Amino acid sequence: MARTYQKLDVPLEKIRRYLEPGPIVLVSSAWKGERNIMTMGWHTVMEFSPSLVGCVIAASNHSFDLIRQSRECVINLPTTALLDAVVGIGTTSGSEVDKFERFGLTPEAVDGVGAPAIRECHAQFACRLHDDSLVDKYNFFIWEVIAARAARVPKHPETVHYTGEGVFMVAGKVVSRRSKGLLAKEPG
Amino acid sequence: MARTYQKLDVPLEKIRRYLEPGPIVLVSSAWKGERNIMTMGWHTVMEFSPSLVGCVIAASNHSFDLIRQSRECVINLPTTALLDAVVGIGTTSGSEVDKFERFGLTPEAVDGVGAPAIRECHAQFACRLHDDSLVDKYNFFIWEVIAARAARVPKHPETVHYTGEGVFMVAGKVVSRRSKGLLAKEPG
Repeated sequence: MARTYQKLDVPLEKIRRYLEPGPIVLVSSAWKGERNIMTMGWHTVMEFSPSLVGCVIAASNHSFDLIRQSRECVINLPTTALLDAVVGIGTTSGSEVDKFERFGLTPEAVDGVGAPAIRECHAQFACRLHDDSLVDKYNFFIWEVIAARAARVPKHPETVHYTGEGVFMVAGKVVSRRSKGLLAKEPG
Repeated sequence: MARTYQKLDVPLEKIRRYLEPGPIVLVSSAWKGERNIMTMGWHTVMEFSPSLVGCVIAASNHSFDLIRQSRECVINLPTTALLDAVVGIGTTSGSEVDKFERFGLTPEAVDGVGAPAIRECHAQFACRLHDDSLVDKYNFFIWEVIAARAARVPKHPETVHYTGEGVFMVAGKVVSRRSKGLLAKEPG
């Protein structure tokens, strides 16, 4: 069983810290008594405030209907400790298994949305649908993050980044290039 | 002076390998005799074929007009060898300096688009504007990648991933979890 994390609130305009580096995330959803988890790698931060995140959720995913109907989800940030669960979640269908049970993950209620978070993840971002104008054409959802919580340690979680064909890049060392200019001019 | 890379063609439906992990990229553009480079961290793959990439380019960037008018750009993939250039490009304005000259970067003509690629980058993706319906509202551009080239080695480039506040995560080790299921079901 993977460890769980106690989490603290994160200012909503600061969630880019977790998502901008491009990690694979686990998207949890719920609708009419059903719940599911999917892996997702096609996402981007879109705005600091309101805190917007855009992502592609292919209509072929079992989660698509739960997410489209509920207009809510939780984006959870897994680390290398969950890599095998990430692969398992990405290669099974919620139409056949309950992924929380199958992969030993703990659902956790989140204020403001019906979808459960995953306690074993480093961070969680509760999302409400902000704009669905590109869903029909590109399966592209724009979410407003309405609540964000993250573990205090480790400061830099060892996230996993998918490159396709079964190969993941793991987050490596951290380097700082703090400069007044860089802080003032964001996003670059 | 950073080293340059000889590059080979990449099948367009395979560019996710470089962009899905979420690296900072350098976007080069040109319009009416002017050229520029900007850093960009808010991007996502959106489709395999046609090869689509969505990204946020804030209207406050000097590059915005060059890109909006020309409806083209090149997305270049820098590695840690270019980190100081990346920071410099992100903290200066193309209205004041020629960033190719200032940061010792070599422009390279690309078939099919007017914007120059950056020879010192590991990979380059020539883009034509595919959909600008979300530009006014979110500064969100959807590009079709019409040509892609990448260095053959190293196989896994040491990309840099921005977390905000002057801190970058560098691409770490690579782990494989090849499985039939994972290969068949993409994107997750």
